[in-house]
Amino acid sequence: MKKTDLLVIGGSAGGILSAMTARKVYGDIDITIIRDTEKVMVPCGIPYIYGTLHDTNKNVIPDAGINEAKINLMVDKVVKIDRAEKTVITESNETVAYKKLIIATGSLPIVPTFIPGHDLENIYGVLKNQNYLDRLLEKVQAANNVTVIGGGFIGVEFAEQIRLLGKNVTLIELADACLWQAFDKSFTDDIEASMKENGIKLMTGTKVTKFIGTKAVEAVEVEGGEQIPTDLVILGLGVKPNAELAKNAGITTNSKGAIIVDQYTRTNDPDIFAVGDCAMKSCFFTGQDVPVLLASTAAMEAKIAGSNAFQLRLVRANKGTISAFSTKIFGKTVAAAGITESKANNEGFATMIGEFSTLDRHPGSLPGAQKTTIKLMFSKCSGVILGAQISGGEGVAEMINVLSLAIQKGATATELNTMQVATHPLVTASPIAYPVNAAAMNAIATNCKHLNEGLVI
Amino acid sequence: MKKTDLLVIGGSAGGILSAMTARKVYGDIDITIIRDTEKVMVPCGIPYIYGTLHDTNKNVIPDAGINEAKINLMVDKVVKIDRAEKTVITESNETVAYKKLIIATGSLPIVPTFIPGHDLENIYGVLKNQNYLDRLLEKVQAANNVTVIGGGFIGVEFAEQIRLLGKNVTLIELADACLWQAFDKSFTDDIEASMKENGIKLMTGTKVTKFIGTKAVEAVEVEGGEQIPTDLVILGLGVKPNAELAKNAGITTNSKGAIIVDQYTRTNDPDIFAVGDCAMKSCFFTGQDVPVLLASTAAMEAKIAGSNAFQLRLVRANKGTISAFSTKIFGKTVAAAGITESKANNEGFATMIGEFSTLDRHPGSLPGAQKTTIKLMFSKCSGVILGAQISGGEGVAEMINVLSLAIQKGATATELNTMQVATHPLVTASPIAYPVNAAAMNAIATNCKHLNEGLVI
Repeated sequence: MKKTDLLVIGGSAGGILSAMTARKVYGDIDITIIRDTEKVMVPCGIPYIYGTLHDTNKNVIPDAGINEAKINLMVDKVVKIDRAEKTVITESNETVAYKKLIIATGSLPIVPTFIPGHDLENIYGVLKNQNYLDRLLEKVQAANNVTVIGGGFIGVEFAEQIRLLGKNVTLIELADACLWQAFDKSFTDDIEASMKENGIKLMTGTKVTKFIGTKAVEAVEVEGGEQIPTDLVILGLGVKPNAELAKNAGITTNSKGAIIVDQYTRTNDPDIFAVGDCAMKSCFFTGQDVPVLLASTAAMEAKIAGSNAFQLRLVRANKGTISAFSTKIFGKTVAAAGITESKANNEGFATMIGEFSTLDRHPGSLPGAQKTTIKLMFSKCSGVILGAQISGGEGVAEMINVLSLAIQKGATATELNTMQVATHPLVTASPIAYPVNAAAMNAIATNCKHLNEGLVI
Repeated sequence: MKKTDLLVIGGSAGGILSAMTARKVYGDIDITIIRDTEKVMVPCGIPYIYGTLHDTNKNVIPDAGINEAKINLMVDKVVKIDRAEKTVITESNETVAYKKLIIATGSLPIVPTFIPGHDLENIYGVLKNQNYLDRLLEKVQAANNVTVIGGGFIGVEFAEQIRLLGKNVTLIELADACLWQAFDKSFTDDIEASMKENGIKLMTGTKVTKFIGTKAVEAVEVEGGEQIPTDLVILGLGVKPNAELAKNAGITTNSKGAIIVDQYTRTNDPDIFAVGDCAMKSCFFTGQDVPVLLASTAAMEAKIAGSNAFQLRLVRANKGTISAFSTKIFGKTVAAAGITESKANNEGFATMIGEFSTLDRHPGSLPGAQKTTIKLMFSKCSGVILGAQISGGEGVAEMINVLSLAIQKGATATELNTMQVATHPLVTASPIAYPVNAAAMNAIATNCKHLNEGLVI
């Protein structure tokens, strides 16, 4: 029987970073990762295999970090956790004893068993398994008509990448807009316009009723009866926590099947932690369950788990998921953090909004200038930031992290209006028109007008 | 006699933004800007006239914002402020009465009158006047051997831009390193190596003793006697506050000639404010005078002045200058915020340092991946962030603003280690290796080791 101090199940972002953090924080302890694949795919990189990398081997998370940190690596599948014995048992019948265990088993794509024909050939979910993704690569390259179902990030990114190959691409989304969980209408309108301009056939507000075909899929039928000729379907319907292993060991899960954890990522077993997609997520603002399964969220939780595994050391509890996203679609970067205006309205927040557009170079005559558009939302009376949406050039991808930190620290509109920033002609907007400052000012201004009544100037 | 509610003297970043902020905050008042040039140069864009824009007209701050905000614009020079009458008098003998006055008269380049030969022809400081910069453009285009004196931002940027034209460029800096006020040695070494690789002759630790020539400059002599053949000298020796006008009106200035202001940018006259390069700057950490004259600092002060001119509304006082900078030199972006390690040592701070390098795409096989190198510095016992330095691709320019906000909000290493970020394969580092998180972890780790003594795992 092998023995280890800290055992981590799962080799993607959450698992790797849990182990590496524990190495830094606890020094010379014995740490082991068990993962069920020889190589690990960069999860968010998967869409880019298809239109940019053309090879799954170019999308591998390198093992160098694990090796340098002297973390033991076992490629095997854990089939049982024995909490009484504090061991796990693997498919190849190895037993590994742990002192502390971190579960980072991730998620599995939702399979639409409710749609007739779902088991026809050439209908692919987005598993993270390399062999499966290799088969999908062959299918993508051979296909002419690809239908992507689901207009979340994965669906939109797959549609964009496959369209770059010149294939006919149809994207079907049940809701009124793609990416509606992260963006309000003005942003989704803009993203959708760009997808259409680039030749994607976009069907929002559309329900898939049937997959048609004899052996392989030949068409996708939607409500109303229209049939879209299709050689290949890619399903981007979201994911569900992969927590059966934990559940079978008596670890408590919630109604969505996610492992219930406290603010230090601890489960109901004091020696067992859970991080990433397999663990529950709650909203930073409301504490309610949120369907945000992101590698960057997993990474944050992994740092909390790895630091606190043997002693509560990193007294930065997980106060909830901020939902900080970014992506790039046909050359435009879009990003969001916090909640959208429509979600805020549904939750009952009184809000004040500030919007602003400018160029991301100054003067705007400099090469590469792109328009940046930002929307900030604040609590109307406290002025505390609730959400941010930005689109523009690549700088947007880091600008959103300014807002993510602002949310984490409860920054107000006034603080963001007068926050000091670095600006430079070649790489940012003008200091006169820095988007975060300017949008915060516009939000304040909407609230200032009545203050002028009675003011003698 | 003209009358206005709010009068602003100066039409660059500080002046424009003071006026525009007041328009948003106070609604329908009368606002006037007086500036002494027909067109206003983007101040930080000036170096890029020479190697990129090739035309001063491409480096103009547009008047659209002022016009849209219905701000009166007078092109004239204020020669006197009459505080008793609450008027200003201009060169063309106009009198303008104000209720509140914001002085944003900027700075003037330091002229080395202490160096013999300083008044030879073809020795240029960096004034912000368009006609002057047009003459310099002709000189640059005609020159073969250009010597830049001063290795601060302006000097380095001019040297890079003129080198891009294929000219012989020598850069002379008195201190041991270029950009030493913003960066520690590992960063300045890297920047200097890039300048040398790109053909700039770099002379650090070198004192200019004489300009040699009959009518125009022919050589620059340095300590030790070496003479550098030179057709054109560009002086980047720093700037001094342009505050004579204020001083002559009895407004208090400090020993460096800067207008003394309180945290709301108010001078000793309750109706007069001062912002930007003409106003004093104090360090965010120590309160001491700092020589940081940046458009982005002026912008922050302008927002405070514009908001608070008639009533203290924006109760975000200026807590001091964070010194957030960025620039791009031969394709690499470098940025800094807060204080350097060497300055922290001089000030007596006990520090902990975290450094980290990674690629700014994930997987690193994606097109355009560049290495990002980050150094974060924290107060050793409180863990509060003191400074950040980053180099890499263009994303660095916004990533530094995450750290600038972190400084403003007093974020700790633990908070930055676990801060939630948006990451995406095409535009950022991996969530496993996000530079801010990872460098903060490394800083914490340096302090963790002794905690393991006595811990039973």
